[in-house]
Amino acid sequence: MPAHPDRLSAIRIVLVATSHPGNIGAAARAMWTMGLRQLVLVTPERYPHAEATALATGAAAVLANARIATTLDDALAGCALAVGLSARPRAFAGRVLSMREAAQEMVGCASERDVALVLGTEMSGLSNAELAQCHIVATIPANPEYPSLNLAAAVQVAAYELRLAAGEDRVWAAPQFRQATHDEIEALYAHASRTLTALRFLNPAQPKRLLPRLRRLFGRAKLEREEVNILRGILARVDQFVDRDRNR
Amino acid sequence: MPAHPDRLSAIRIVLVATSHPGNIGAAARAMWTMGLRQLVLVTPERYPHAEATALATGAAAVLANARIATTLDDALAGCALAVGLSARPRAFAGRVLSMREAAQEMVGCASERDVALVLGTEMSGLSNAELAQCHIVATIPANPEYPSLNLAAAVQVAAYELRLAAGEDRVWAAPQFRQATHDEIEALYAHASRTLTALRFLNPAQPKRLLPRLRRLFGRAKLEREEVNILRGILARVDQFVDRDRNR
Repeated sequence: MPAHPDRLSAIRIVLVATSHPGNIGAAARAMWTMGLRQLVLVTPERYPHAEATALATGAAAVLANARIATTLDDALAGCALAVGLSARPRAFAGRVLSMREAAQEMVGCASERDVALVLGTEMSGLSNAELAQCHIVATIPANPEYPSLNLAAAVQVAAYELRLAAGEDRVWAAPQFRQATHDEIEALYAHASRTLTALRFLNPAQPKRLLPRLRRLFGRAKLEREEVNILRGILARVDQFVDRDRNR
Repeated sequence: MPAHPDRLSAIRIVLVATSHPGNIGAAARAMWTMGLRQLVLVTPERYPHAEATALATGAAAVLANARIATTLDDALAGCALAVGLSARPRAFAGRVLSMREAAQEMVGCASERDVALVLGTEMSGLSNAELAQCHIVATIPANPEYPSLNLAAAVQVAAYELRLAAGEDRVWAAPQFRQATHDEIEALYAHASRTLTALRFLNPAQPKRLLPRLRRLFGRAKLEREEVNILRGILARVDQFVDRDRNR
């Protein structure tokens, strides 16, 4: 029986020795936008701090429930899996995964046990001794010329991958419109053909590639019923002008 | 012939009416960590600004080369595809994709032409009129209770997906160690069996499940040659103590 209502709530983010309180607040916000709520701070330099609160914005609850730990060991208590996030190659002898792969493992493990993602300081990341306490090192692919993500930005990417790995990838859908049927579309082409002929833009004896090109264009657009109606409305209006011209 | 040396450099990030200069700097940093360099600012509220420069850190060049545009139309000049990033359902009649899907389309298109990702203000995102100038709306899956990513954090996630879509997903590898061979491992088990018997921890007449459990454990760990040597070193040391005890 899992201890958490959903897998995301079994995932804790552990920030080790963070220098800037603003980064703690921004990390809390990043977590909560992706549905993560367990924040553990190991010996933060300045915390609590007004800047942390300001940057957490709507994630004040994550900050309020953050746990302060005196050691990384303490922060990882109860975790079945600890993943260290690191930007640079290290003398780490264990498995190195991309953050996307690591998120899959973490979420898989989080269905039964607590898991942790550990991030080090802004300046130098995790020490080798801290990495040695992690089972896996995860890394975010980055520009080799400048792989230095802001701490909260790295939390945002990691939390995003964790949310997607947990299958929470729903996005809102555009309003649905009724597709036009085959016969509605063919009636449109027939109408267009008549109108273009009346306009003397199309010569039925020498049609060239005009109609096929129009079919290609509108075929690609996958016409909706309302769009067919609009186009036929335009054609009908043109027909009126052509008729009036002819009768003049 | 593509106008850009690589597809990522054909992608521009367009920030519309950004309020906080710090977000512009942080967005530039987020871009450059993922190898994006084209930043366009449409009527930024305060720019240039010391806070933008401070938060850009190592991405000063992105900021220095940022183009200021007076309209979104101007910002999108020359683009074959414009994707609007939006957190909330909209009266947008076009295609709505996840950022991951949109990144694939953008990178596909960027091999031939410039493409743009457009982000609105911190408070309210893109207006409907601005979205109407985009061909696709992209959205980042988020916590429905609080989907409000910081502007630069959204740029970070989008730029990360664009980098991965461009195939730039290399991560550094852990140092490689030589796997132990079958015979080295079998020699280890034989040694362990002798030592455990000498220790009277294992009774060869009634071995129970001890050796199979050890095989299961070390099999899972996929032993390396050096690890086999370490384990055999430990066994050899134990053997010495057992011998000394026996001879006493």
